[in-house]
Amino acid sequence: MTESKIYDTLKNYGFLITPYCSFGLTETPSIDFFPVALKIESEKVVHKSNFGAVKLNINSMEALERAKDEIIANVRAKEVLLDATDRFIATQMVSGIELYVGLVDDDIFGKTIVFGMGGVFLELYKDVCYIDIYADEVEIQRAIGLTKISKVFEGFRSFDFTIDTAVAFIRRVQNFAKANPDIIELDFNPVILTKEGLKIADARIKKGEPKLEKLGTLRENRPPFFTNQRVVLIGASSDPTKVGYSIAKNSLKYGGELFFVNAKGGELFGKKLYTSIAHIEGDIDTAVIMIPSNTVIESIKELIPRNLRNLIIISAGFKETGDNESEQLIATLSNEHNFNVIGPNCLGYLNGAENLNLTFGIDGLKNGNLALLSQSGAVLSALMDKAYDAGVGFSHLVSCGNMVDLDFAEMIDMLNREETCKSISIYAEGIQNGKEFLRAIRKSQKKIYIFKTGKSAQSKKAAFSHTGNLSGNYAMFKGLIESVGAKIEENIEALLFNPSNEVNNILIVTNAGGPATILTDYIIDQGKTLYTLSKDELDALNEVLPSNWSKNNPVDIIGDAMANRYEKTLDVVSKFEGVDLIYLLVTPQCMTDTLAIVQLCERDWGKKIYPILLGGHEMEEAKNYLRSRQKLFFKTLQSATSFL
Amino acid sequence: MTESKIYDTLKNYGFLITPYCSFGLTETPSIDFFPVALKIESEKVVHKSNFGAVKLNINSMEALERAKDEIIANVRAKEVLLDATDRFIATQMVSGIELYVGLVDDDIFGKTIVFGMGGVFLELYKDVCYIDIYADEVEIQRAIGLTKISKVFEGFRSFDFTIDTAVAFIRRVQNFAKANPDIIELDFNPVILTKEGLKIADARIKKGEPKLEKLGTLRENRPPFFTNQRVVLIGASSDPTKVGYSIAKNSLKYGGELFFVNAKGGELFGKKLYTSIAHIEGDIDTAVIMIPSNTVIESIKELIPRNLRNLIIISAGFKETGDNESEQLIATLSNEHNFNVIGPNCLGYLNGAENLNLTFGIDGLKNGNLALLSQSGAVLSALMDKAYDAGVGFSHLVSCGNMVDLDFAEMIDMLNREETCKSISIYAEGIQNGKEFLRAIRKSQKKIYIFKTGKSAQSKKAAFSHTGNLSGNYAMFKGLIESVGAKIEENIEALLFNPSNEVNNILIVTNAGGPATILTDYIIDQGKTLYTLSKDELDALNEVLPSNWSKNNPVDIIGDAMANRYEKTLDVVSKFEGVDLIYLLVTPQCMTDTLAIVQLCERDWGKKIYPILLGGHEMEEAKNYLRSRQKLFFKTLQSATSFL
Repeated sequence: MTESKIYDTLKNYGFLITPYCSFGLTETPSIDFFPVALKIESEKVVHKSNFGAVKLNINSMEALERAKDEIIANVRAKEVLLDATDRFIATQMVSGIELYVGLVDDDIFGKTIVFGMGGVFLELYKDVCYIDIYADEVEIQRAIGLTKISKVFEGFRSFDFTIDTAVAFIRRVQNFAKANPDIIELDFNPVILTKEGLKIADARIKKGEPKLEKLGTLRENRPPFFTNQRVVLIGASSDPTKVGYSIAKNSLKYGGELFFVNAKGGELFGKKLYTSIAHIEGDIDTAVIMIPSNTVIESIKELIPRNLRNLIIISAGFKETGDNESEQLIATLSNEHNFNVIGPNCLGYLNGAENLNLTFGIDGLKNGNLALLSQSGAVLSALMDKAYDAGVGFSHLVSCGNMVDLDFAEMIDMLNREETCKSISIYAEGIQNGKEFLRAIRKSQKKIYIFKTGKSAQSKKAAFSHTGNLSGNYAMFKGLIESVGAKIEENIEALLFNPSNEVNNILIVTNAGGPATILTDYIIDQGKTLYTLSKDELDALNEVLPSNWSKNNPVDIIGDAMANRYEKTLDVVSKFEGVDLIYLLVTPQCMTDTLAIVQLCERDWGKKIYPILLGGHEMEEAKNYLRSRQKLFFKTLQSATSFL
Repeated sequence: MTESKIYDTLKNYGFLITPYCSFGLTETPSIDFFPVALKIESEKVVHKSNFGAVKLNINSMEALERAKDEIIANVRAKEVLLDATDRFIATQMVSGIELYVGLVDDDIFGKTIVFGMGGVFLELYKDVCYIDIYADEVEIQRAIGLTKISKVFEGFRSFDFTIDTAVAFIRRVQNFAKANPDIIELDFNPVILTKEGLKIADARIKKGEPKLEKLGTLRENRPPFFTNQRVVLIGASSDPTKVGYSIAKNSLKYGGELFFVNAKGGELFGKKLYTSIAHIEGDIDTAVIMIPSNTVIESIKELIPRNLRNLIIISAGFKETGDNESEQLIATLSNEHNFNVIGPNCLGYLNGAENLNLTFGIDGLKNGNLALLSQSGAVLSALMDKAYDAGVGFSHLVSCGNMVDLDFAEMIDMLNREETCKSISIYAEGIQNGKEFLRAIRKSQKKIYIFKTGKSAQSKKAAFSHTGNLSGNYAMFKGLIESVGAKIEENIEALLFNPSNEVNNILIVTNAGGPATILTDYIIDQGKTLYTLSKDELDALNEVLPSNWSKNNPVDIIGDAMANRYEKTLDVVSKFEGVDLIYLLVTPQCMTDTLAIVQLCERDWGKKIYPILLGGHEMEEAKNYLRSRQKLFFKTLQSATSFL
């Protein structure tokens, strides 16, 4: 499409275009919008600049005539024969704030709009956001707000543009893209921000075969995965080095009916080992498979007639070792017979409220309100260990494995129907169906936190070889996910401590100035603020602290502070209404009674208190004390703040 | 100064200015550089825009005449009486790449040039660097290279500007600033990048009283601090809760002459406690003072006649509690009598080669080549603990305390004369004399690593109340320090592990894919690269690994890997010449023999190997093993990479 044809089309969709005029090679147009750029419009001239077929900053009709002659001469010199189909286009050179609006057809997320700072430095500053073509106004505004250039909508340097101008433009691009599904690339650069709206000053459009967009293919009739009754462990083993032993042991606290199967028979943990599924009577709604991969399909076929609803395949040896065929068969069976599959090649599944631990991770985790989905068993296992130490509880844990069946979108939908789940954390390496994923997050009533690997080309490759899923462009992933309202975490442990997102105003109590200063920087880096003490609050602290305390937050109660000064301080600061979180920073000074200080944290102060113990050996006793009580504490300033 | 006068002045210094023309209110100039902006030049019109006294995009003489009339009418409407001293200035409106060049007179660093992306979005993108007015060409180039806009000098979008153009311009600004010390602010925005050089299109200059620049006030005649012979501990104490006890205990390994003083007399650790300094015969070159603050001055006066060279004042109770007067007196004495002071209010001093530990931190640190200077005792103490665990050795440790005498610049100079010191790490909260600091780093033969707090307004305030020194603008600090060749660390522990800056190509050996993918992202985030395996290297690994290994770096040797597979892998990869560092990632799988795996790290593989143990309780034995041997290991992926 020539530039003027693109502009004509765009005008039909209501887009504003900066003034332009297309005219024949021998025509003399009447132009009243100088300065202009003059360009040839010819399919024979692909790289206009290289052909000397672009002239800028033309200020008058005389200059325009000269420029026409020069361009024709330049093109002739390149031995191109121009004819009656070739034309000129003169476009007004507008100065103003240059924006960029583009459309890409992404492998993972399909048609996606890119908006941000435009002009020649677009790629240099990459100040852009990503917007789904199905995004509503709220999402569009949220996305735009993630760019720096959006400050021009907030009074930056007295600009008084409103964000509505930009939103209206993006709505128009959405409609244009939906009406023209064959447009797979679109570049408006620059788009000039004016009072009347955004005006396109240059446009490029590419048509082609659009990528499939699965939006709407939701399998609504699936049984709820997170409800289990009669559970069978296939491959329960008395060999303590086997996964089948660990899961059987972890499963024992389950209140529902539980059956162990092992071809060898016998007993395990006082329970009968059935030699075959056939010997168990009645329905089997949930089964865990831990047998060699070549016998898995056979077992599934035996389970199907038993009204199987949920299947967790622990066994490895499928896609990750090249066996795509068996995985395909499992997927087909699950769709035909309407049961859910987790795995294969996974760590298992845990349902807190049901006391059902079908993982070979650590046992004894607390029940809680957090559901955690992980695409890596090793990462899940490390997070479970950390959660155990810190006393974090879960409603559900899912080790996704090769994800042959249920995807993140479906699990988010299902978890939204589970009362015990209040928030959802996801460790993701690759995403299969981006549009569905966005839809599920958009619809979710529960807050969602996502840590995603695959930022760099190298880790994308590693993730692909590990999960077989594409990682995509991280910036786009982050932008889209944030636009639909989930939070992207930059630190893996934030998946456990995410409730701290309600934390804004932080107070530090410390016995040393230096570390508190570093901690302050880390807190501000995370976008949180240090609480400002009021006059009354300062007075209250003056009453209990020595005269040389810092008179400021961080509340430095001086190196000779012992537990009773910490206690008096907590007595006062825990009553400060505006404080959401207190860091209790302890460094070993000569007389510091660290154990007595950390014991203070066991009291209910009505506030979240995070102890940070900075010392080494002198602090082992206090650390062991906290560990043994599954109390969260931190050993470095960075780890204490990385999840804020 | 009016705009045209500024331009006239700048021209005299060889600056290129975009065409301009200044003319009387009734004059008709002859202008041949349209389009122009027309502005009034009058001291009566301060905010030109608000007065309607600026007209843009004027394309012809007729339009200029109209604009003149409109401006005069607008100004009259504001009831300003224009007279013969008032003029117009027409300046060419140039399009092109807009740069910014400014000069500020900073409280800490004095006259400093700011260079970067210019135009209206300067403050939004803050893509600028900082250049000392004494910087040479190498420093200027290094600084410019820190900006994104510098890509236009590296062929970005076929721009073919050379960096020499920018360097020459900055040299000119340096000369201009040195020749005009009363210029305390300068704003060239925009400066247009052209083939002929940088052309100033708008300029603002502010004159005033320049801030003092101490460059050149170096106290060259000071005795070397880092050489000690006869050492006296004043306030050595037999009370184990006292600092005087801890330091006396730590000092015992010293090979030189060592004396303890305590007014009560007696014995400590088998050594005599002198009741007074007077009873010790001969010179006392180094003294540590650990007595109450009100008796410190008296002791110093007693020490002066004994040829005192180095004084370490541990005692607190000076500036930090409001006693500036005593500190001032100590400073005066040290200058008059030519001795060095560290402190007061500090943790002490350690000289590795002399086996002299005069700190109340941990004892038993290894000797090494790293000197560490810290402005916080608590931070130093935590770093010493970490160093002990990780087996990091030191040539020197200095707890700077209130820094009444020696500053960082002088210590850097002195450490450059110490053979045992190969690199210098600095934890800084506030800087006193920026120009001296830059000079010392510029001159240093030893690589310097700096962690600086005070990024945010709140931590600046905290640092100020803690050290009494200004923190300054963090971006400027970072920019200047990097321009003179030191490295700014973003993680405090990087001060210990900085030798890893020679590390570029990294290889990961892992028994789990997920964590290795995260680790890859962290490594790339830090600007390092994952080593690419050659065909031969892949073949060599194929020989020792099961067929389903990752065939890629990260080298995923699969979950069932035991120590002997790790060993075979290390046998192969340790011979890969291009690899600078190997991460040995271990996650607990059913059969993982972690202890045997980490024992592999004790062997000399000819490469740096960092073990990362991701599991919880199952790994305690291996962790304790490494700890007891003072072997570095990591428990999180982030901590393992944060110092890269």
